[in-house]
Amino acid sequence: MSNQQVTIQFPNGEQKRFAKGVTLTDIAKAISPSLAKKSIVGSVNTTATDLTRPILVDAEISLYDAMSEQGLQVIRHSTAHLLAQAVKRLYPDAKFGVGPVIENGFYYDIEMAHTLVPEDLTIIEREMKKIANENLAIIRKEVSREEAQQLFAHDALKLELLEAIPAGELVTVYEQGEFTDLCRGPHVPSTNKIQHFKLMNISGAYWRGDSSNQMLQRIYGVAFATKEQMQDYFIFLEEAEKRNHRKLGKELELFMFSEEAPGMPFYLANGQIIRNELESFLRQLQAKYDYQEVRTPLMMNQRLWEQSGHWQHYKENMYFTQVDEQKFALKPMNCPGHMLIYKNDLHSYRDLPIRMAEFGQVHRHEFSGALNGLLRVCTFCQDDAHIFATPEQIEDEIALALKIIDHVYKVFGFEYEIELSTRPDDYMGELALWEQAEKALENVLKRLGFSFKVNEGDGAFYGPKIDIHIRDAIKRSHQCATVQLDFQMPEKFDLTYINADNEKVRPVIIHRAVFGSIDRFLGILIEHFSGVFPLWLAPKQVQLIGVSEAHQPYIKEVQKALQEANIRVTIDNRNEKLGRKVRDAQLQKIPYILVLGEQEQQQQTVSVRAHNKLQTLPLQQFIEQVQQEIVEKQLP
Amino acid sequence: MSNQQVTIQFPNGEQKRFAKGVTLTDIAKAISPSLAKKSIVGSVNTTATDLTRPILVDAEISLYDAMSEQGLQVIRHSTAHLLAQAVKRLYPDAKFGVGPVIENGFYYDIEMAHTLVPEDLTIIEREMKKIANENLAIIRKEVSREEAQQLFAHDALKLELLEAIPAGELVTVYEQGEFTDLCRGPHVPSTNKIQHFKLMNISGAYWRGDSSNQMLQRIYGVAFATKEQMQDYFIFLEEAEKRNHRKLGKELELFMFSEEAPGMPFYLANGQIIRNELESFLRQLQAKYDYQEVRTPLMMNQRLWEQSGHWQHYKENMYFTQVDEQKFALKPMNCPGHMLIYKNDLHSYRDLPIRMAEFGQVHRHEFSGALNGLLRVCTFCQDDAHIFATPEQIEDEIALALKIIDHVYKVFGFEYEIELSTRPDDYMGELALWEQAEKALENVLKRLGFSFKVNEGDGAFYGPKIDIHIRDAIKRSHQCATVQLDFQMPEKFDLTYINADNEKVRPVIIHRAVFGSIDRFLGILIEHFSGVFPLWLAPKQVQLIGVSEAHQPYIKEVQKALQEANIRVTIDNRNEKLGRKVRDAQLQKIPYILVLGEQEQQQQTVSVRAHNKLQTLPLQQFIEQVQQEIVEKQLP
Repeated sequence: MSNQQVTIQFPNGEQKRFAKGVTLTDIAKAISPSLAKKSIVGSVNTTATDLTRPILVDAEISLYDAMSEQGLQVIRHSTAHLLAQAVKRLYPDAKFGVGPVIENGFYYDIEMAHTLVPEDLTIIEREMKKIANENLAIIRKEVSREEAQQLFAHDALKLELLEAIPAGELVTVYEQGEFTDLCRGPHVPSTNKIQHFKLMNISGAYWRGDSSNQMLQRIYGVAFATKEQMQDYFIFLEEAEKRNHRKLGKELELFMFSEEAPGMPFYLANGQIIRNELESFLRQLQAKYDYQEVRTPLMMNQRLWEQSGHWQHYKENMYFTQVDEQKFALKPMNCPGHMLIYKNDLHSYRDLPIRMAEFGQVHRHEFSGALNGLLRVCTFCQDDAHIFATPEQIEDEIALALKIIDHVYKVFGFEYEIELSTRPDDYMGELALWEQAEKALENVLKRLGFSFKVNEGDGAFYGPKIDIHIRDAIKRSHQCATVQLDFQMPEKFDLTYINADNEKVRPVIIHRAVFGSIDRFLGILIEHFSGVFPLWLAPKQVQLIGVSEAHQPYIKEVQKALQEANIRVTIDNRNEKLGRKVRDAQLQKIPYILVLGEQEQQQQTVSVRAHNKLQTLPLQQFIEQVQQEIVEKQLP
Repeated sequence: MSNQQVTIQFPNGEQKRFAKGVTLTDIAKAISPSLAKKSIVGSVNTTATDLTRPILVDAEISLYDAMSEQGLQVIRHSTAHLLAQAVKRLYPDAKFGVGPVIENGFYYDIEMAHTLVPEDLTIIEREMKKIANENLAIIRKEVSREEAQQLFAHDALKLELLEAIPAGELVTVYEQGEFTDLCRGPHVPSTNKIQHFKLMNISGAYWRGDSSNQMLQRIYGVAFATKEQMQDYFIFLEEAEKRNHRKLGKELELFMFSEEAPGMPFYLANGQIIRNELESFLRQLQAKYDYQEVRTPLMMNQRLWEQSGHWQHYKENMYFTQVDEQKFALKPMNCPGHMLIYKNDLHSYRDLPIRMAEFGQVHRHEFSGALNGLLRVCTFCQDDAHIFATPEQIEDEIALALKIIDHVYKVFGFEYEIELSTRPDDYMGELALWEQAEKALENVLKRLGFSFKVNEGDGAFYGPKIDIHIRDAIKRSHQCATVQLDFQMPEKFDLTYINADNEKVRPVIIHRAVFGSIDRFLGILIEHFSGVFPLWLAPKQVQLIGVSEAHQPYIKEVQKALQEANIRVTIDNRNEKLGRKVRDAQLQKIPYILVLGEQEQQQQTVSVRAHNKLQTLPLQQFIEQVQQEIVEKQLP
């Protein structure tokens, strides 16, 4: 009798016996009808499994509802199938490539005669809703390769995917009504479990991502567990769109792009002011901590990039130029140039640490499809630094780097999370040095009271690292700063110093960036502040508007006083109504709008509009207040 | 009878008749023996002519002595022949290429079996002296091409030069003793006129400057009219060598070069501080005058460079890179990027002038032989600006540009000269606009009270220009700033604005640079100041030296006070004697050296060594004095 039963263990450790062939749905029903109703997928011995699949062995099981991460993944995957079924009904010649889950949703690649236009998405979506309401059962079937080949005989794409399944591996298909797809699963048990989705857009995509293959049509969609989740997502999208740095960059005249230099930003006057403020802020902070700023050439010869290893590992992303028989590369990183500067001199342990910093413009080729405003570009300015240190100095140097990072991020109001990545399997260098370094990193993080996540084995092959992820105003995470130990670069460039025992030994290098890329950081700042920058960054800090022509002398006087106090001030002298001028200045997000008329002129005051408040202040008091706000880098 | 005489007119207008065939020497002798003695060459009807050549027609003549520019040129040319004769005596297989006059002297290119070493120069020089004392007459001979071919039958180089003489042109040779050279002349009458010369160095040079030809040996020399002139020259050389920016750049750790990036400077910490100060100085000044700073990509595609004309006219000096089938070039100039920014928006006459500035890193290929420290590099940062203006604004905009240039140059103590270059024969654009523009440039120079030299026809094909030549501390002239009008760029890029009559019309562009190249300007500054920079530029402004360990707390206190006052301060904590520390700080040319001991600590004073003076000051007074010196950018 006992081999007709299986022992099922629940997540809480309890066990229960069921007839062999029991399904997760049966088990759920046995516990409670409501559990059965809300479950959409499960796991059997840690493998994600359809609710309707018979269980033939003793197993630990879990059940997942739509609200779980696992459930949501399956919903998104099943929505991709739903999309394919609807497309097939509408366009019977459609053939399907891959249809994976991505962030917030899914896509499916389609080959068919009809070229999709955005309006088609509504029609397809309607068809999907219909199929969902038909409540078709989604049925997993194990098939032989021959059966599968017959099933997809008219679908060259699926046949190619079938061939790619390793011999000996089980082939499964999923059926829902008239539609069958080659798929590993699992899926939700029936189409009516899929209710909250939206098709987003269409793009082209090469079959298997290879530009020598045919171009397919890709439909992107999103899917969620609940109506609220989906609403939140669209509110987030709307908020993100409002803050979109490409849109704001245009409106606030911060930067532009040109097809003559794809992926390479042109900074307009307003954007360049912010860049200069950011650079100058970090330059002063670094000078305070004895960083030495240097400047290295933008191109160096092939030999150097071979020595650094970039030639072997990074060639695809580099730009090359030929000069008099020699091949040169535009630098994708600043490291090799800094190594040459270190080697230009002999060093004693007394000279260390050397903290070498550069605002270095690097070039890294990206395919045009990957470009995204300032967030993903082909050239950017790194606030790079390399710290040459003795092994004993690692801990203090990491602490100092983190102190600077913390200081900078606080100024922008960024919260951040820290991740420590340790020795990977393919590590290079001495084990003892790795262990000393990892210990040092952990120690310093603990000593500074940081909580951090350890990513075991996730370090670079040349050393362990600390990554810092900032969280912006709408809770998106961005990795910006990094602090990386490097034991390999000193070997490759044969760097040495003379230690206290008069021996020639290798320094350790710490790579460090705070902004990471100034360009990308600016993009993040634009979205974080939604274009309403702190006063010290605002391209225009004060706008002057006269009530009438008669007040020009006073306007000039105020302008001069502000300029002398190093405040960026502009005058709106257009032939427009006062109200219009105030509104335009608000649209430009100018922090302080001063309206100057008879009364102000007589009393030497200014009427200040800022942060939706209106007040009249003596000119001198206003200047002092503004100067303080700038110096303290107050947040808006 | 009269056709046996010629009428000779002297520079003062007087005329006199001489027998046909009279020579300049005869004429000089007729005036005075001393004139005959000191004359070394003359001119007949404005053509430079040997003193011994018979005059067959009526002529205006002049006589030149060694002190004249014309005389000096001839001495240098004759010294080249003297060199060739000496070499031929010492190395009978020697064959000669070209031997022209250059600044301060001459060179001669030689082909022979013996490879010259520096020691050979002394031997050759001795031989030259000997030939000079032999006082050989230098005799001009007109020869037929056949005679010349026979004379140089064994000298392939001279035969090639002979072939290059256009048919119908007279062929002349010059004989001195056993030596004959193919030469147009003129020369001094005899070898003893050449007394003050020195051979300087040897280098390789391709025959006719073409690297596919054989390599010749080139000997450089200098020659002067008098012993004093030559002494002055060597004193100047010594002074220039003391100030040599490559030498000082190394000693003061300002910059370095690497063979991994020939001609591309690496700025070390000290040099980068000066660069940043220079940039920041000009940035603030430009902001004051409503310049808008922008930043454009370092590479743009071929199409853009074709549009700008750089592709057709500047390709040889540009660096190219291939990206996804498209050819890109590293920018050799910033103009096209600025044109794209201008075109990014519509403009009305009310928006003009737009003053667009960039600290733009440009790349221009130079052959390695042409490189010279920071003075001639393959990449440099231009302080570039383009002013987009209406034709009516030209005068005011030029005036403003000159005002800024004047301000900047005065800060460094540079005197300067102005040259105005006008419409060349191959000018492009409307004549009326040219005339208006030239008038505007002249007007503004006169209005501002500048004296200037007009170079008729020397303007660029796209517009007239003003070049500014500064004179450094040892009176060398450097062209740095430039102000150029451009009528072509607006055409090429189809730039427009809407004028007051609501018509679409072309703006005028003014190209403008103050430093020119920041890199080259820094090189000039290093030599001008001989490394003793004004305080605001000095990488280290104050060095602290403690009398003993006991004074460390006070040293730290002084350091902190200076840092808080934004003064760049360093401490010499080495285990060395006080005197050694002071000397080393002086060698580093640190403007202020403070020695701190018991007395200073007790009295809160500092002992200041600066400009060879020693005085004791209250700390606070010293700080104020230093701050004032920085703010006022006082000269050292």
